[in-house]
Amino acid sequence: QIDHFGFDENRVFQQRYLVADQHWKKGNGPILFYTGNEGDITWFCNNTGFMWDVAEELNAMLVFAEHRYYGESLPFGNESFSDSKHLNYLTSEQALADFAVLVDYLKTTIAEARHSPVIAIGGSYGGMLAAWFRMKYPHVVVGALAASAPIWQFGDLVPCGAFFSIVTNAFKKSGTGCSESIRNSWNAINHLSSTDAGLQWLSSTFHLCSPLKNLQDAAVLKNWLSETWVNLAMVNYPYKADFLQPLPAWPIQEVCKFLKDPSLSDKLLLQNVFQAVNLYYNYTGEASCLDVSETATKNLGQTGWYYQACTEMVMPLCTDGVHDMFEPEKWDFDAFSEECYRLWGVRPRLSWILSMYGGKNISSHSNIIFSNGDLDPWSAGGVTQNITNSLVAVVIPDGAHHLDLRSRNSLDPRSVQQARALEICLMKQWIEEARHSH
Amino acid sequence: QIDHFGFDENRVFQQRYLVADQHWKKGNGPILFYTGNEGDITWFCNNTGFMWDVAEELNAMLVFAEHRYYGESLPFGNESFSDSKHLNYLTSEQALADFAVLVDYLKTTIAEARHSPVIAIGGSYGGMLAAWFRMKYPHVVVGALAASAPIWQFGDLVPCGAFFSIVTNAFKKSGTGCSESIRNSWNAINHLSSTDAGLQWLSSTFHLCSPLKNLQDAAVLKNWLSETWVNLAMVNYPYKADFLQPLPAWPIQEVCKFLKDPSLSDKLLLQNVFQAVNLYYNYTGEASCLDVSETATKNLGQTGWYYQACTEMVMPLCTDGVHDMFEPEKWDFDAFSEECYRLWGVRPRLSWILSMYGGKNISSHSNIIFSNGDLDPWSAGGVTQNITNSLVAVVIPDGAHHLDLRSRNSLDPRSVQQARALEICLMKQWIEEARHSH
Repeated sequence: QIDHFGFDENRVFQQRYLVADQHWKKGNGPILFYTGNEGDITWFCNNTGFMWDVAEELNAMLVFAEHRYYGESLPFGNESFSDSKHLNYLTSEQALADFAVLVDYLKTTIAEARHSPVIAIGGSYGGMLAAWFRMKYPHVVVGALAASAPIWQFGDLVPCGAFFSIVTNAFKKSGTGCSESIRNSWNAINHLSSTDAGLQWLSSTFHLCSPLKNLQDAAVLKNWLSETWVNLAMVNYPYKADFLQPLPAWPIQEVCKFLKDPSLSDKLLLQNVFQAVNLYYNYTGEASCLDVSETATKNLGQTGWYYQACTEMVMPLCTDGVHDMFEPEKWDFDAFSEECYRLWGVRPRLSWILSMYGGKNISSHSNIIFSNGDLDPWSAGGVTQNITNSLVAVVIPDGAHHLDLRSRNSLDPRSVQQARALEICLMKQWIEEARHSH
Repeated sequence: QIDHFGFDENRVFQQRYLVADQHWKKGNGPILFYTGNEGDITWFCNNTGFMWDVAEELNAMLVFAEHRYYGESLPFGNESFSDSKHLNYLTSEQALADFAVLVDYLKTTIAEARHSPVIAIGGSYGGMLAAWFRMKYPHVVVGALAASAPIWQFGDLVPCGAFFSIVTNAFKKSGTGCSESIRNSWNAINHLSSTDAGLQWLSSTFHLCSPLKNLQDAAVLKNWLSETWVNLAMVNYPYKADFLQPLPAWPIQEVCKFLKDPSLSDKLLLQNVFQAVNLYYNYTGEASCLDVSETATKNLGQTGWYYQACTEMVMPLCTDGVHDMFEPEKWDFDAFSEECYRLWGVRPRLSWILSMYGGKNISSHSNIIFSNGDLDPWSAGGVTQNITNSLVAVVIPDGAHHLDLRSRNSLDPRSVQQARALEICLMKQWIEEARHSH
């Protein structure tokens, strides 16, 4: 159903979902249901090894459900992003309703799945969806594992600067002079971009695919660098991995090897910064130039996510240059709202997500695990303390963005092994409870 | 917000709500929040004496919130019912979102209401909304009193015939020969309506405002009679009252005084049936004729409700003439769907309400009282057994439709007094729990 919440639009669309049932015990083996987020579901399927690792132990069926407007699940095909009319059905509420209807469908169409308890699992925005799915549809899922889900990164629930100060700490801890070098790089760019010669020098030093022409382009360069540091903090995994980009183990440590001396002259400092970002964008050595319009994998649906950020998912972020290594920038809702109106003709509604999902007042719910890695900037908006006996926070000191959802690895720190053990134990409890209630 | 679940329609409308705070204890006195249903809120306000009766004891503020598309809360003014485009935002989900946003608004704008625990109270469809409000927004309301709420009158959760068999029992118990007289009346009408003279006789005997012209009109007469018996069962209160119509105490007993002999000839039987319905429609003696297009008070919004029944609120009902006193009529979804499409251009979605609100699988929720009167046909779809310690069923053997929500009355049976005492006791517990969680 394109619109679950109205009957005037009665058309339907094809939602993609993936099923793996080789380990499933028919009759009452559980279903682990990945609540897809802002990207191609096959990519999430391939990057959520945890589910594959535990399928046998839990006798579980795996289901990966694609989020509407991402991957191949486009309600209006190629027209899906053409205007705000077509984008109107891209909301978390519609996505959760898709998931609820899909589970009901699977339970009535798959023989012997009728009594299978379902557990929602997701990471990042998908982790928010997993938690919200349990909150809003507890009759559909017996529990949820919400990994790296910043459900409190809204309104004024957490300080807007916490996110970037976690990014900064990851760099500070990974090498002497590292975060200071980055903090100093902004002024170096500002100096150089004030002249044409400087812009030219920046363009060639950073091997940019399209040369910088003015101050506006220099601002884009700085944004791109900021996002790169953020992404590095998110994927600061303890082993060679390929999530947003192919990277070595502990990539921030590798990057910081180029950024030991913050007191260098502008040009020498920025040459080092280039070495650092080049490691992120060109670890394989295949890139002939760097493109400041891209920061992450194309498996993520940036257009759809930006629309969601411009409507429901307004996450206030800010920097002050003191508690973080970034250029100071206040959170400016009015400017953001104008930009949204210019782009999509919509205005964000700041308080809706709080009215809908309860903000910090969620203690009446049950059976949700909130896991967060201390290295992950998104832990700033996450639940990192137990709320009740059955709303459990799992903290992973050495973990970046949903490390626990990744495949087992011989280089996994002890902390993520223990986190996964606790998660599995709690999931088994939910499954047992569900069995006894039949 | 006309549309809470999409951002393309960004217009707003004025929602009416009534507030009584003379007994409210500022600071943490609770708010009793009536979740308005399909009618004018002032009418519900005047017919929910229970809330007024307990306000002082609980130091409570009373809020009565009007449901969108009813009373004066029309999203598109006079155009609200003009077509399915304008009706598109008439759903229970939008109404619940209205309530959540309204509570958040009251808590931020009324000084010292910030920590007031809110309890949802409603009857009938309003009772469903109260229960669903607690289920979906437990961060907004600490509990709900759902009076005579048939939350299971959907899908195949209960037998479709239960409703009419309860109606029948109310007549059976209220006088010898009563339900049999009504059962026999249908064939009597069928016989008479097969001739023009018979139709004329029926029109004049029933004092109809517009005479019957054909078999179709006779079918309308029979429907109107059926609805009258149903309504009598709903308002079979132990004292003189004026809810749907002004009526004496125990009106079914009064009606049954005319219906003692089921073996009379067609005409004599129907003359008695006229006396019976005349008591319902003309107890005050002011009606000069009876209008088969009206069965209840104009305070109810029939158009809006029929649209809701044609979309989300599909309640299967059926009769067999054996376990009930009505003409046999199977539940025919396809015919119903066609009628909805003809009227509004919409098709009902049978399973949506079950996916959304969980059907019988609601045990993970808490703090909801489901009260039902055994005399009330809607108890057929109600929760009449405890589900958990905090999902409590309150049964009122001598109660009709949400008798417990009415004002205290010296003629109240013991059972409703006890029901109210338990309801108040549980509400106090919720209020205490909420205080301790601060």
